[in-house]
Amino acid sequence: MNSPLAIPSIDDVRAAARRLVGRAHRTPVLTSASLDAMAGAELHFKCENFQRAGAFKFRGATNAVLSLPDSVAGKGVVTHSSGNHAAALALAAKLRGIPAYVVMPSNAPGVKQQAVRAYGGQITLCEPTLEGRHSAAERLLAETGATLVHPYDDPAVIAGQGTVALELHEQVPGLDAVVVPVSGGGLISGIAVASAAVSPATGVFAAEPAQADDAARSLRSGRLEPLGPANTIADGLRASLSERTLAIMRQHVRDVITVSEAEIIRAMRLIWERLKVIAEPSAAVSLAAVFAGAERFGGRRVGVVLSGGNLDLVRLPWQ
Amino acid sequence: MNSPLAIPSIDDVRAAARRLVGRAHRTPVLTSASLDAMAGAELHFKCENFQRAGAFKFRGATNAVLSLPDSVAGKGVVTHSSGNHAAALALAAKLRGIPAYVVMPSNAPGVKQQAVRAYGGQITLCEPTLEGRHSAAERLLAETGATLVHPYDDPAVIAGQGTVALELHEQVPGLDAVVVPVSGGGLISGIAVASAAVSPATGVFAAEPAQADDAARSLRSGRLEPLGPANTIADGLRASLSERTLAIMRQHVRDVITVSEAEIIRAMRLIWERLKVIAEPSAAVSLAAVFAGAERFGGRRVGVVLSGGNLDLVRLPWQ
Repeated sequence: MNSPLAIPSIDDVRAAARRLVGRAHRTPVLTSASLDAMAGAELHFKCENFQRAGAFKFRGATNAVLSLPDSVAGKGVVTHSSGNHAAALALAAKLRGIPAYVVMPSNAPGVKQQAVRAYGGQITLCEPTLEGRHSAAERLLAETGATLVHPYDDPAVIAGQGTVALELHEQVPGLDAVVVPVSGGGLISGIAVASAAVSPATGVFAAEPAQADDAARSLRSGRLEPLGPANTIADGLRASLSERTLAIMRQHVRDVITVSEAEIIRAMRLIWERLKVIAEPSAAVSLAAVFAGAERFGGRRVGVVLSGGNLDLVRLPWQ
Repeated sequence: MNSPLAIPSIDDVRAAARRLVGRAHRTPVLTSASLDAMAGAELHFKCENFQRAGAFKFRGATNAVLSLPDSVAGKGVVTHSSGNHAAALALAAKLRGIPAYVVMPSNAPGVKQQAVRAYGGQITLCEPTLEGRHSAAERLLAETGATLVHPYDDPAVIAGQGTVALELHEQVPGLDAVVVPVSGGGLISGIAVASAAVSPATGVFAAEPAQADDAARSLRSGRLEPLGPANTIADGLRASLSERTLAIMRQHVRDVITVSEAEIIRAMRLIWERLKVIAEPSAAVSLAAVFAGAERFGGRRVGVVLSGGNLDLVRLPWQ
């Protein structure tokens, strides 16, 4: 439908914000004097782990679902995802009363399949390969006439994620920087578009596991670099940028800060202990980047996006 | 100083609220559609686990410290507590620039001693008995000329805790009920006084472990009943009421709902999984009571006070 590089504007983000009123949570911003002291900066944590379905993904999924005309929407939506986007899309579709078809790899954790089913999503299991995912999704699209809602390479999804920044800049005016985990780039692209419009002095920084550093390499080379094995505890950050999200990041993102697995686990534990909130490893990457980039953020007013809080509470990574 | 049964008024609570502006966090209220569905009620979680020093205790401690005239305050404050009040008082004293002397039992967990020290509190270890605590505190009071700030049997402390309810009723008007963990009764007494004044239609309910049910028995008999061994995971709820807090509860509290250890652990896990916040076992007792009292709360708008989030993150009780 959209040309490959359609880029959402601030007006698209504002329209998304209007659609989300009464549907998505306006998530709170938390602070911690002890984390501020450790970072030597003033940190404002935007808690998207409190978002419906436990992650920012509900914003983009809902905006995409609500953007469909009735005639199209009735046939439902399709996605391929083993993570937070799948559950978010299932919930967004349920709230509009339309079917959601989700392609998941056959090795996806049972708990993630349960979340999708709990929201009424219909799961099609596929071979755990990129090829397997895509062919299963293509087949579903052909059979059902439903619309694909990509986890991040979709202007309506990106515009929805950008509403995080509209809220954050209202809640905390005058941020010097905002630090955002990056995977496929949907969240940071939306935040970058919105921040450039409403708070242009705020520097937007990406946070990425060193074990899945395709965004850092892509931004450096200026073209999409392949992801590699992505052997990171941050299971939500194992996707790679698209041409669209790379283009937005090249325009608006100051830098990508990469962090080690040990830094991620340490930051996650600090968030649990000091902020008293459950952040998944992918979300903790943002605080890890603040510590890793201390020389940049020292004395500054920094927004830290906690992207989600979905994880199995059976064993903690520091145990 | 105060007559044994001095009871704070709503004006005292409002004065406390003014003292706390810019010092204590105005904590957010969170909701969860899935917990609402499970409870068959509309639940509003007041997140005092996000309060400074990790629990509501900072409110009462700060109000007590700020209520002291300069001449008295300069000599410092004393308390005996192995838990959240000790750390809260140490922080409140530090912010006023006065010493805090804390009597802790020699078997108090290292992590709790560290929290007190991190806020600059001076610890005196004592025999782990009620007698040991009291004589150590008496000695400190005599030596230093400091003022005792009791964890709950103090009108200024109770008034400070009452500010939880002032905020909650502003944030969520029209609550049918509010459910509050009870131990010594400082939190529920403050909430009861404030609720009776600003939202008299709201029923105030206490939540208590069945393994430490002195409040339930005392409210039934009308006089202080002894606590017993208090063999509960809710380590913050092992104190017993005072004449003052019992008198307030008899006037204002509808009922005490007791819950089993298994119910506490289940509620705690649900709070972590669904709300994505770290609640300590003592805080989860309130949600456990909502489930246990389903016939009372069905279809109602219920405030649920999450009193604190301080616990060792080394082993989870459901593991």
